Amino acid sequence: MPAPTPPARPVALWYDADAGVVHAFDQALLPHREVVLDLRTPDEFAHAIRTMQVRGAPLIGVAAAYGLALAIAADPSPAAEERAAALLLATRPTAVNLAWAIARVRDACAATPPAGRAAAALREARAIQEHEAAVCEAIGRHGLALLEAIWRGRKARDPGATALQVLTHCNAGWLATGEWGTALAPVYKAHAAGLPVHVWVDETRPRAQGASLTAWELARAGVPHTLVADTMAGHLLQRGRVDVCLVGTDRTTRTGDVCNKIGTYGVALAAFDNGVPFHPCVPTSSIDWAIEDGVREVPIEERDPAEVTHARGRTAAGEQVEVLVAPAGTRAANFAFDITPARLVTGLVTEHGVFPATRAGLDALAEAARVG
Amino acid sequence: MPAPTPPARPVALWYDADAGVVHAFDQALLPHREVVLDLRTPDEFAHAIRTMQVRGAPLIGVAAAYGLALAIAADPSPAAEERAAALLLATRPTAVNLAWAIARVRDACAATPPAGRAAAALREARAIQEHEAAVCEAIGRHGLALLEAIWRGRKARDPGATALQVLTHCNAGWLATGEWGTALAPVYKAHAAGLPVHVWVDETRPRAQGASLTAWELARAGVPHTLVADTMAGHLLQRGRVDVCLVGTDRTTRTGDVCNKIGTYGVALAAFDNGVPFHPCVPTSSIDWAIEDGVREVPIEERDPAEVTHARGRTAAGEQVEVLVAPAGTRAANFAFDITPARLVTGLVTEHGVFPATRAGLDALAEAARVG
Repeated sequence: MPAPTPPARPVALWYDADAGVVHAFDQALLPHREVVLDLRTPDEFAHAIRTMQVRGAPLIGVAAAYGLALAIAADPSPAAEERAAALLLATRPTAVNLAWAIARVRDACAATPPAGRAAAALREARAIQEHEAAVCEAIGRHGLALLEAIWRGRKARDPGATALQVLTHCNAGWLATGEWGTALAPVYKAHAAGLPVHVWVDETRPRAQGASLTAWELARAGVPHTLVADTMAGHLLQRGRVDVCLVGTDRTTRTGDVCNKIGTYGVALAAFDNGVPFHPCVPTSSIDWAIEDGVREVPIEERDPAEVTHARGRTAAGEQVEVLVAPAGTRAANFAFDITPARLVTGLVTEHGVFPATRAGLDALAEAARVG
Repeated sequence: MPAPTPPARPVALWYDADAGVVHAFDQALLPHREVVLDLRTPDEFAHAIRTMQVRGAPLIGVAAAYGLALAIAADPSPAAEERAAALLLATRPTAVNLAWAIARVRDACAATPPAGRAAAALREARAIQEHEAAVCEAIGRHGLALLEAIWRGRKARDPGATALQVLTHCNAGWLATGEWGTALAPVYKAHAAGLPVHVWVDETRPRAQGASLTAWELARAGVPHTLVADTMAGHLLQRGRVDVCLVGTDRTTRTGDVCNKIGTYGVALAAFDNGVPFHPCVPTSSIDWAIEDGVREVPIEERDPAEVTHARGRTAAGEQVEVLVAPAGTRAANFAFDITPARLVTGLVTEHGVFPATRAGLDALAEAARVG
């Protein structure tokens, strides 16, 4: 059987209704190998999410929705649904989208007679995927307006400026969301609109999603970019070489604290210290309205310390390997996320517009979401 | 010929007068292979410094002093001395110790008749080495007093505390200075004094001197430590898991701005944001009295971008390799140092005591250095 062909537009995951299978780029093998996974069983979906073959808060939600829908299609009994939901829910503790997507699929089924449950679940999974794409596209539009304004300001201060300098951390592109991305959606829109955007890409150790995924996405799209080690973001910001920071988020509290990939807090501190705008790009679905204080209340996933003691890459001979970067036996800690306090956030770029990272700002967003 | 045996106490570089050769650990091969270099010619010294087989601001000065002394021993002509000095001086632009050590050797020779110049130069190199060791030992003593005070404060607030939590960045241990180290000297003293010190070790990409050198030093000395990615320091500081940050410095301005390994500024920002003391450990010789504004005036070395696109480590098969962590052809930037503004510095730990990172503090240090 030939390898499945991804759709022409950049998509991280797609459902093949004829084969009853979900295809997804294996993000653990990027950028050196482009392998497409076949996902059918809850175990396969859970494994892909747990090992970050499929990662990024919105995409995890989409994947979990399809995983549950295919499980219901295979066995529509409430017990099987419960088992699949619990399995998928346990894969990653931090992303709020996961629970949200699973609840949506279960709600859609609950209101449907047994014979129609599989179709309802799949319809809901597809609706979630389409919703995430539309949300990202809208974030891209609002972010583009922001970038245009920042670029106008930059040109006014510095008429010789040749590039709009964006810094991003981790990967919040279409690999993370399905289509468009969150933090990269405005970048893609700006590039398409002819703004001379250049992206500083943080490597994002330990898993190096910046080096391996964001650089790969940007290269594919022809967007100029330069990779830096995570240690270098502060220096670039201090030297005036960044006009705006755009990052994703896994969970944002109702007071505007932003939980995102470990290291985001450091980028925000350096941006704040140098008066550079710092904008998380936030699908409304990733806001956790039940949480007030990010530092106290958001559980921070700890992952395998081997991710810190090792680095993954390609040898000169073309082989993909993991190499030990510390003395054998070194103890390591591996926190996957951190919290950027709302006071460091310039504004949240959402699908409904840009809102202050404050309780009042989030109230306004909730109202916009309700109306629009 | 058997491999040269290092002295019993931890020393990064030692002169073998019988063989007329300087031995030094090849730090580019640590932690996985312990290889000792033979350095004789200015080219060999320059190569070792440029490729960071020998690195760390004080050790670079010691090595350059020996390199120049051996060059003078081989050819005492002013032209040869000039050539060797220029070659060594050009190896690393940021460290102020390099120029300082070379000037000291040249001054010692200038006052000596031709027949005695080789001996005078070697005597001066050895004096520089012994001076650096004594300076580091004194930094260790003053730093120990600081750690004892911090530990008392911690215990008063939190009687159940079981460890004094130090965070360090890069390697400022004996590998960087010859003996003791700067930032690690207080740690070694504290460990020897029975304080329950635990060190969070920043990996320090791109060259990972934390993972490869600091973790190796601490393991050798039996000091408990945990490796983290550079992205994690902010999170640890935010969660109250660090009592004090200790770092080295390559150059400190006369107003207290600290130039150190790239990423130090980020550690300082996070320490400041969370009220945790941040102490650079500063040999007085590394202070650049001619510079006022670190951000504007200190030249920042840019190194080979391949250090950023690649990581170095050991495969499961035991082979040392470099692996590409980004898509082939990715452009990268590689800034080696950054500037921590004095306003973020709690105090400078020097061989003369702890001084505020202010113009007045440095005036007091200069006075203490003159008297003491």
